Amino acid sequence: MEWVELRRHERKESNPDLGILSGRLLLSLQQEVYETLATQGHEKFRPKHGAVLAYLDVEGSRATDLAQRSGQHKQVIGTLVDELIELGYVRREPDPDDRRAKLIVPTELGLDQMNRSDALFVRMEERLADALGQRAYGDFKSALREVVRLRRAESD
Amino acid sequence: MEWVELRRHERKESNPDLGILSGRLLLSLQQEVYETLATQGHEKFRPKHGAVLAYLDVEGSRATDLAQRSGQHKQVIGTLVDELIELGYVRREPDPDDRRAKLIVPTELGLDQMNRSDALFVRMEERLADALGQRAYGDFKSALREVVRLRRAESD
Repeated sequence: MEWVELRRHERKESNPDLGILSGRLLLSLQQEVYETLATQGHEKFRPKHGAVLAYLDVEGSRATDLAQRSGQHKQVIGTLVDELIELGYVRREPDPDDRRAKLIVPTELGLDQMNRSDALFVRMEERLADALGQRAYGDFKSALREVVRLRRAESD
Repeated sequence: MEWVELRRHERKESNPDLGILSGRLLLSLQQEVYETLATQGHEKFRPKHGAVLAYLDVEGSRATDLAQRSGQHKQVIGTLVDELIELGYVRREPDPDDRRAKLIVPTELGLDQMNRSDALFVRMEERLADALGQRAYGDFKSALREVVRLRRAESD
């Protein structure tokens, strides 16, 4: 038997770490949403804008809440909101509960993106559950939620 | 019993989809690496640079291979490589196997980041395995690999 030392990328390919796996999964989900929505009137929407639209309420949300929900800095959210206003997905309105605060409110185009993207995530997960088996997929998702919870608990 | 309709972000909080979960996991891993390395001489390194350094071989790699391994566009990789050259993490050298091609080769600083970050991922996963149990963690990671494989097989 011949011993061949693997290169770093080969070791990572044969035994990928949690960062590589979570990154690949996120990227593949984002790309399917992005490519599908591009054929449905959302060709200017970019995956990065998901950090706002994925967490936005139909009634509107404050930028601080979007930052907290997405884990992004408030400054990043502010830039994405500016881009989304420019693209016609959201507008800034006074918050009826606090006149000094602003709400980010989805437009019709924004609501369309939110509904289509929520439905696409449901379908992508249904396909995975069909392929893995409902029970195995349920177990996987519970474990993933627990891993995310443990990571959050550690950093608090 | 009173029926209260949940807002979209509340529904997503109580039943997060795979995009939210994979995004939170990736972000929390990247942030720990970023914050830890910032105290160890890598204060200018940014999480986005991981798309290059996570997949770089000690002997150097071609930009096209880094793009393929990370799933990022070659143009994105090119920009990140330019930034990493500026920060002193890598340099471009002629590829000894093909004189027209260039290799991205890590400097001492780049190798230090790669070693520290690889070790951090091992430790973060050990902590999760301790908390969940080795067997449950192993099952979770196998299922995650299978999910990533299924997503790739679908898109091929």
